[in-house]
Amino acid sequence: MSNVFIIGANGKVGRHVAKQLSGSVHDVRVGLRSPEQFADFEALGATPVLLDLEQDVSSITDAINNSDVIIFTAGSGGHTGADKTILIDLDGAAKSIAAAEHIQAKQFIMVSALNADSPETWSDSMKPYYVAKHYADRLLRDSSLAYTILRPGGLTDDTGTGAVTTDPASTDKTTIAREDVARVVIAAIEQESAYHQTIPLLEGTTPIADIFA
Amino acid sequence: MSNVFIIGANGKVGRHVAKQLSGSVHDVRVGLRSPEQFADFEALGATPVLLDLEQDVSSITDAINNSDVIIFTAGSGGHTGADKTILIDLDGAAKSIAAAEHIQAKQFIMVSALNADSPETWSDSMKPYYVAKHYADRLLRDSSLAYTILRPGGLTDDTGTGAVTTDPASTDKTTIAREDVARVVIAAIEQESAYHQTIPLLEGTTPIADIFA
Repeated sequence: MSNVFIIGANGKVGRHVAKQLSGSVHDVRVGLRSPEQFADFEALGATPVLLDLEQDVSSITDAINNSDVIIFTAGSGGHTGADKTILIDLDGAAKSIAAAEHIQAKQFIMVSALNADSPETWSDSMKPYYVAKHYADRLLRDSSLAYTILRPGGLTDDTGTGAVTTDPASTDKTTIAREDVARVVIAAIEQESAYHQTIPLLEGTTPIADIFA
Repeated sequence: MSNVFIIGANGKVGRHVAKQLSGSVHDVRVGLRSPEQFADFEALGATPVLLDLEQDVSSITDAINNSDVIIFTAGSGGHTGADKTILIDLDGAAKSIAAAEHIQAKQFIMVSALNADSPETWSDSMKPYYVAKHYADRLLRDSSLAYTILRPGGLTDDTGTGAVTTDPASTDKTTIAREDVARVVIAAIEQESAYHQTIPLLEGTTPIADIFA
């Protein structure tokens, strides 16, 4: 049993994570920007905590205090303005990493993006988003934390298949269901084989339970 | 005599730096985005080199090759869109830092901004700019380079006074002339006392020649 904190729980991946953790052995807290979002997560058995990633490191530290595992799945999305991208996907992530270091979290699971280290693949319109993800991941790898960086391809709302690949070269697929990304997030919790790993994720044929086995 | 490379030479501070280095002992190259900008700098005795900070690290490495001192004074400015801010002030800077590491430059002089480490002072409209400067400076400090990070206050086009302060607490001034910032940049070149330093700059009473004495 771990104390798990989901930053960005109200996002599309975050909601899958919260839902799948409902009824699990873990004690789950979720960071939310507005009290209006609380009821949905209380219904899942999670404990909501007010959290605004535009606040300072000490506010984030207070919110996540006593957590073992931090799941960062917040994001302005690839289609908001670049101002929010830099404030949430980069600065919000960096402050969350600093806060997780302060509380000496056991693990920090980052939902990143496929190709975040491959600028040659970035389209012009998505560049600010990828730049933010790239440097956030870099700050996480340079931190003192046991990190797990998950890098899914194009996210879909399809029903998950429960099977993925971590080798983009092995597949023609370019997407993965958010439901499956959430499953991998949960499979990674306190798995030492997932520590200090940066893992691409696409729809594939490896059962999710086997990834960290 | 050093081989000096100015990244962002066509910016307002960059032009002051290039002008002041004209006729100096240094061999000066300037990175410019367009051949149309070449003539102005050739007239100053500098050697123009095509350089686009949106290109990759190897392009930047090729451009700055054989330089001893890299001066980074590029910037999208505080008033462009946040997309350019993240691409130039953060990613362009980070790629320049990586390129300077590749060529084992002796020194990297960064023109940053006062309060880039003090989020509580950032206005909402300037936040994306400060976030970009903050993480660019952090990447530079975490690099293998002998860095000099200069953090001027509000930049003016006034004639410089030739005197500054590096202690914001000692003055009510909030600004500094770009001409004086350029003088400090030049005074820092290959001064070992300037290595691994982050230095606030405001108009003041200390002669610029004394800062690194």
